[in-house]
Formats: sequence, C-alpha cells, structure tokens
Amino acid sequence: MKRVSIKDVAREAGVSTATVSYVLNRHPGESISAETTQRVLEAAARLNYVPNLNARSLSSRHTNLIGVLIPQTEPGKAFVFSNPFYGELLSAIEYTARENGYHLLLSGTREDQNYASIAQNRGVDGIVIVGTYPGENLDALRTIGVPVVLVDSYVTDSAFHTIGIRDREGARMATQYLIEKGHRDIAFVSGSIRENGVNSKRYQGYCEAMQAAGLPVRQDALYLGTVSHEFGQQAADMYVQRGAKQTAAFVTADILAMGFAKGLMERGVSIPKDISIVGFDDVYLAQMCYPSLTTVHQDIAQKGKLAVQCILDALENPNAGRMEHILPLTLTERDSVEERSAGEC
Amino acid sequence: MKRVSIKDVAREAGVSTATVSYVLNRHPGESISAETTQRVLEAAARLNYVPNLNARSLSSRHTNLIGVLIPQTEPGKAFVFSNPFYGELLSAIEYTARENGYHLLLSGTREDQNYASIAQNRGVDGIVIVGTYPGENLDALRTIGVPVVLVDSYVTDSAFHTIGIRDREGARMATQYLIEKGHRDIAFVSGSIRENGVNSKRYQGYCEAMQAAGLPVRQDALYLGTVSHEFGQQAADMYVQRGAKQTAAFVTADILAMGFAKGLMERGVSIPKDISIVGFDDVYLAQMCYPSLTTVHQDIAQKGKLAVQCILDALENPNAGRMEHILPLTLTERDSVEERSAGEC
Repeated sequence: MKRVSIKDVAREAGVSTATVSYVLNRHPGESISAETTQRVLEAAARLNYVPNLNARSLSSRHTNLIGVLIPQTEPGKAFVFSNPFYGELLSAIEYTARENGYHLLLSGTREDQNYASIAQNRGVDGIVIVGTYPGENLDALRTIGVPVVLVDSYVTDSAFHTIGIRDREGARMATQYLIEKGHRDIAFVSGSIRENGVNSKRYQGYCEAMQAAGLPVRQDALYLGTVSHEFGQQAADMYVQRGAKQTAAFVTADILAMGFAKGLMERGVSIPKDISIVGFDDVYLAQMCYPSLTTVHQDIAQKGKLAVQCILDALENPNAGRMEHILPLTLTERDSVEERSAGEC
Repeated sequence: MKRVSIKDVAREAGVSTATVSYVLNRHPGESISAETTQRVLEAAARLNYVPNLNARSLSSRHTNLIGVLIPQTEPGKAFVFSNPFYGELLSAIEYTARENGYHLLLSGTREDQNYASIAQNRGVDGIVIVGTYPGENLDALRTIGVPVVLVDSYVTDSAFHTIGIRDREGARMATQYLIEKGHRDIAFVSGSIRENGVNSKRYQGYCEAMQAAGLPVRQDALYLGTVSHEFGQQAADMYVQRGAKQTAAFVTADILAMGFAKGLMERGVSIPKDISIVGFDDVYLAQMCYPSLTTVHQDIAQKGKLAVQCILDALENPNAGRMEHILPLTLTERDSVEERSAGEC
C-alpha cells in the first residue's frame, strides 16, 4: 500500500501542502485559522496519515527538547533518583543534551499514563525510555514520528533504537565468580522479577551459572522485593531470621547490595568473612561504601551519553535505520568477596 | 503610577483585550495573524506592560509543566545528579509534580544561558531554581509572569518565593559540636566560596563558631575546591601532604565528606581516631558509608516537595503573596566524630 503523504492530506482537506505542514508540525507562530486546522486534522485522520520521520526532521522547527521517561515499575517508589544508578544515568543524559543545545522533559510516568500523548503534546524531538515499558503504550510511540530510544529494555521492535547490556551474561559472570571462589550456596537478592525485565534476565543468568556448576537453585535462597536500600536491609533481616546458610549473595543492584550489607553488619554478620557479596552496576558509591563492593561494572555515563547521541544521530540522518548499542560488562573486584576453602561451609 | 493593564495594551494596539490575551499567553491553537501579533507585542513593549500573574493564572491554559533549573556553578561538572543531594531533591520534586499532574522541564543551565527565555518559550507554569543564580538572569525572570521558587538561594527579591535553610547556623552548629568534643584545630572543607552563596554562609558559620571559642581561623585549615567526591579525595591528599595537624574537619557537603574520609583512610589516617568529620546534608548515603557520617541533617525530600507545592499554591491563589519557607536543621550523630581529651592534640 502506498504511504499516505502530506500531499494526499492537502488534497483531501483542500489546502496547500504548506498549510498541512504548518498544522501537523504545530508551528506556534504561524497564522492558521482554527477552522483550517480542524479541516487538516480531520483529513489526516480520515486518510490514516502517519507522519514521515524523514520529512518531519527535515522540515520542522526543532523543539530542542528530549523527553526522558523513567517508568515507575515499583509502586509507591518516590525516590527513583536516590538510586545512584538513575542519578548517574540522568546526569549523563542531561549533560550530553545540554552540550548539544537540548533540554529534558523529565517524567517518572506511572504505567497508566500515556506517554506518547504527553510527549506529542509537548512536541519533543526524541524520547529516551529507561527500563521496561508496557506493550500497549509502546504501540502509540511507534507512530509518534520522533526517534525513540529504549534503554535497558528487552522490547524488540524495529521502530525503536536500543541501548543496553547483556544482563543475563553479567549475572552469570557474577555468580560464576562466586562459585570459582568456592561458594556453593549462593543467595539471589533482587527487585521483583517481571517477564522480559532486567531482573528476570539476571535471574536467568544466576540460574544458568548455578546449574552449570551442578548446584541447585533453592527457593529459600531467593530474596525478592524492590530495588532499594530499604529492601536490602529487610533481606538481611530475612537472612538472619531464616538462619540462612548461604555463604555468598549475588545482588542485582549496588544500592540493594549496600542495604543488604549494612543490614547484615548491624545484625552481627561479617562481610566478607561470613558472607560474600557481588553487586551489579558499579555506581560510584560502590567504592565508597564499607566494605567496598565487588560488582559487575557497566559504563553508566556512556549509556546515558549514547542514548542522547542516538537521538541526535537519528534526527541528523533519518535514513540510518535502527541503532542498537550493547555495552560491555566486566567484574570489578573489591573487598566484599572472600575465597572459601573446600573444608568450610 | 497606575499599572499598565491588558486593556491599555488593547487600546494602544487597536485590538480587543481577548486578542491581547491570546497573543501574550501564546495559546498555540488560536488564530491570530502574524501582523496582529506583532502589533500587540509592540504596543505592550511601548507601554512597558508587565504581565499580571493573577490574570495570567486565571485565564491562561496551563501547560502542567514545571521548569527545574540547576545552574552549573562549577564548570565542567557533568554529573550533578551523582551528588545524592541533587538526586534526592529531584526525586521529591519529580514525585510531587507527578502526583499533581505536572511534568518537569529539566535543565542544568550554564550561566551564560538565558533561562527566562528558555522557560518562556517552553511555556512552563512555574520555575524552580536550585542554588544561586547570577543577577542579570534573574531580572528577566521577574517579568516572566509565572511563579518562581528559589531553593537554597540568598537572592532576596519580592518577585520570588524562597525555600531554604539557615546555612550559617547549620555550619556554626557543626563547628560548635566539634569544639565541644574537645577539638581546637578544625579544618573547613568546601566547594568554592561565592558571594552570597550557600558555601559562603557556611564559611561564616564556621568562622563564627571558631571565633566565639577564641580559636583562630587558619588559612592552612581551609580546603576549597568543588563539591565532589573527587575533590574530597584531593583534599585528603593535601591534608596528608601538608602534614596537617587538624584533629577535626567540618565538611560542607556529605558527598565531599565521604570522598575526604575515603581519601584519608587510603592514606592511613584513621577516622575518627586521627581526625573527626562532620558533614552537611544527611543524604541517605551518610548512614551507609564507612564510618557512618555525623552530619547536619536537613529534610531534602521536604525541600523538594515544598518547592513544587509553593508553585501549585501560587497558581491556585495568586493573591497569597510571596512565600518563604525555612526548614529546620539538626545534628545527627553517627560514627565519624570522637571526643578528644584535653591532653591530646
């Protein structure tokens, strides 16, 4: 089927293509009557017109505004940027945007909000979405006519650029490392596991490493809650209450690992003597906490920078096609892991 | 002198007051010709018309967008939100805005950028500015016609609402506390001191406490750089290089105190045995670092919440006048300070 063009809409509405362009790109300064605007919008709707990104980016006045959406997947979590991961990511996004003359429209949207319409009403030039996002809302973003970059999302859709890491491999690497250090009974501490979410990939990686070493994945070694310092402390309490025997834990976020470590130490559990801990993210605080955290390192600043550059590239060169960036992971050794000799545990 | 009203502008331009209102409030959907727009703007300029906030907020369509400006007072500092203070503040601002149906326009503006015009072009309903801001740019914000809230700023101007703390008193309290613990030689570690900035108030408080106790303020006890974990480590290096004798330090930000503590410990200086440290802010990481930080506590979340509520109140009730909130400070004792007996030091 031939794509409906701006010319078709102009013919249908009985106006010039310039008028259609003015209306659809919502140039605030142009003088188009309310009646004409209405006629054009109705014609576009009748014809099922979908804005052509190429034409849009070539012809329209840029708003120099990038929408940044951090969906609130954990209800009631007011302080998303208190997780240093988001703070560092946002810093890099803001800095890169600013250096390129862009501002950010920031939203920690709830799942029931339609981000596409928010973004469209605000007239953003591009959208960065961090974390998973429910399918129904993504549909609307597909036709919004501006580049969309999904960061840390396992949604695969040719309409969106993606930036991420191999979460499963990172988790496997962390768990394997603990196994190589002589640990057999390894806890998994994490935020809630949602299908196709980052945590579910990390859980898969943990299970794979355990199974590859012939170790069982025990239900009572799983501590699942929210990605927060508070839940880390609760998990520590559960660990002590259960009289748990795990000699190591893979914790899927540094902020959680720091809460877990603090909670354990307050309850007289020594780290790494009694239990070794490996985190994930390598936020800059991982080297400041006590004990400093052995963790899966990812380049958070680069992630944020690439997200903005991806949008700028897509605006500059709309024919370049879908971009996919996968950033490498490494394991950073610090003070929270101890080798366990075969005789122990 | 009688205030120039929208009626005066209408008479001068030879158009209706409705037309003036449409033009000045920049309703994107209205059909006003470019020529009329021009005529109205020229008439408003000739008459020195200043938008009346009351009229504006009653009549205009809200954008439900709040501009948040965090001026970059320290050049080259890419990662402002890595300072957990800003992360926590922004979290509270974002959450409160979201709960009230608002989004944020976020900008870490450089000093040479004109935020008033950015904000005006974006059509924000209100503006939150965190930290000091150069005088020339504030002038433009005075006539922008939307509520402006200054957070942690010592600019006094009847046009702006303010939310802050008594920085000088907080610093005096921290320094006095160290003096009461037996310390006589107390370092002051801080970001750069700018006139009327938060750090200059904290420096005043430090000096006042020292002088009140008959203690000299020594130049070689001052460590001034940037508010960052990195500079904290550099200050630690300077401390060791200088063969410094201070037995305590008041550090004007927790993030800086954590860097300082880490840098000292890496150089074999024990905390609090060799040197006691008091921070400022009580970011939630202050209790997670090692040793946990004795610090001046402020309610960061409340600060962010009030900033947004102040804008909402001003929009709701434009006659309420200027609002000023000063939040209380307390000292939170943790593990980074040790009493020094008279014989020592």
